[in-house]
Amino acid sequence: MIELFFLGTGASIPSNERGHTTIALRHTGEIFLLDCGEGTQRAMVIAGLSMMKVSKILLTHFHADHYAGLIPLVQSLSLLGRRAKLEVYGPKGIKEMAKHLKPLIGDTGYELEFKEARKVDGGNYIISSIRTSHGIPACAYSFEEKTHPLFLEDKAKKLGVFGLDRKQLQEGKSVKIGNRTIRPKDVLGGKKEGKKVVYSGDTAPLKSMAKFAKGADILIHEPTFGDDKEKEAKEYKHSTARQAAGIAKAAGAKRLILTHISPRYKKAEELEKQAKEVFEDSEISKDLMTVTI
Amino acid sequence: MIELFFLGTGASIPSNERGHTTIALRHTGEIFLLDCGEGTQRAMVIAGLSMMKVSKILLTHFHADHYAGLIPLVQSLSLLGRRAKLEVYGPKGIKEMAKHLKPLIGDTGYELEFKEARKVDGGNYIISSIRTSHGIPACAYSFEEKTHPLFLEDKAKKLGVFGLDRKQLQEGKSVKIGNRTIRPKDVLGGKKEGKKVVYSGDTAPLKSMAKFAKGADILIHEPTFGDDKEKEAKEYKHSTARQAAGIAKAAGAKRLILTHISPRYKKAEELEKQAKEVFEDSEISKDLMTVTI
Repeated sequence: MIELFFLGTGASIPSNERGHTTIALRHTGEIFLLDCGEGTQRAMVIAGLSMMKVSKILLTHFHADHYAGLIPLVQSLSLLGRRAKLEVYGPKGIKEMAKHLKPLIGDTGYELEFKEARKVDGGNYIISSIRTSHGIPACAYSFEEKTHPLFLEDKAKKLGVFGLDRKQLQEGKSVKIGNRTIRPKDVLGGKKEGKKVVYSGDTAPLKSMAKFAKGADILIHEPTFGDDKEKEAKEYKHSTARQAAGIAKAAGAKRLILTHISPRYKKAEELEKQAKEVFEDSEISKDLMTVTI
Repeated sequence: MIELFFLGTGASIPSNERGHTTIALRHTGEIFLLDCGEGTQRAMVIAGLSMMKVSKILLTHFHADHYAGLIPLVQSLSLLGRRAKLEVYGPKGIKEMAKHLKPLIGDTGYELEFKEARKVDGGNYIISSIRTSHGIPACAYSFEEKTHPLFLEDKAKKLGVFGLDRKQLQEGKSVKIGNRTIRPKDVLGGKKEGKKVVYSGDTAPLKSMAKFAKGADILIHEPTFGDDKEKEAKEYKHSTARQAAGIAKAAGAKRLILTHISPRYKKAEELEKQAKEVFEDSEISKDLMTVTI
């Protein structure tokens, strides 16, 4: 199961309705932040997400509306007494940026590592990335669950498996319930295809994105502009809603969620309409919207 | 007239109710930001304050809950096409911090100058600062209107002076209304004492603060802790509500506004009570509260 929390869905200048871009992706208790715009930690508090559970931050590029929440978040984690390592991935050049971020952040009391985006095998998931086109170094990310055995609810119920025990068994560890040892094979069987989520960050429309998002359960793509501003989209290396929908269609994605909405488009209904003309299962994200797959 | 907008009134970790510390001070059309915590630009949008009117940012120290709104704010001003210079004042060491902030901010298209806090004569106001005690370089600020002539409402009304003309005359410039030249002396007379606002930033209680805030119309002081955590206040170089009230009393201030409220104190009623026991005119600030003097 993957849960998505759209913590901030606005572009450029924040508005009453939309903060800057952050999407929290929760998977088996771990939280991954896709970008980290200003206001991330407050939005996490409001959404009831624990900051301490953030294990990786995946930045698409270094424009402030996508990373300005980083410094205050990592300082807060230090205040909260974090000891676990925190990894921050980003586009080419992140190590250079880290040289300036680190003195501003100061001592954290935990390991804070900045890395160029690469393939990460997390055991039950894989993170990948591709370069995108936004005028400065930028990248997109995909998060894929690995194929995993089905959890047999009926068997588990009969054996009295709940809560933490369930999680341990899903992770392949045996548990003791009373005097009995329950083994993973007692409650797991068959195969379940993993889910795939792809996040574009800011980018001009790219053929490589369609390939990267092939078969995605959810493609989260930016539509910074509508049909009315196609020229500006090209000039500033952004996508229109129609172009984003074209990518979703070419990728054979199951669902398109549009985020990074300019304050120019108040309710963004026109963006949704333009996207739907190309790809039916398109929707505009809203701040604090949650999606579970 | 000085208007204060408490844009963020929380300490350490933001909460549903309180964002990080920023106070906007508006005076004759100019906006001065006292600190610039995460969420400043969104709070300005919600409060209906124009970011383009910000002329100076006065940072008390470089903990993220007091400055993390800076990078995204200055980038937004660039997006909005600002051309006017922006001055950022701060404690000793700000020039060193600027070396790291500037590459993260990138090109702004306007002059962005970082300066150590000092006396600034702005024509009709004076900004001063003193060093405070918070474990890292930190300072407090005072904003004082200069004594200025009274605006004679009756005379102005008879002469048909309104709006922009009024402002020009108050600034000592003659204006033309129809064929007539109205001179400042036609509508100004007597003397009006200027108002004084002092903002502590984060600090242990200081005798020098009482001197600095002498006769202030408003002292804005932090009470990060209550009586229950006096030991922690001392350890982390913060003040309790009672200590802040003691400073207000010793300064002979007219009014004490407490800001930088820890999420530990939900409604902060206990902090207000403790402060009032020492200094009657004490109150707790709330996000988006405005005060005019």
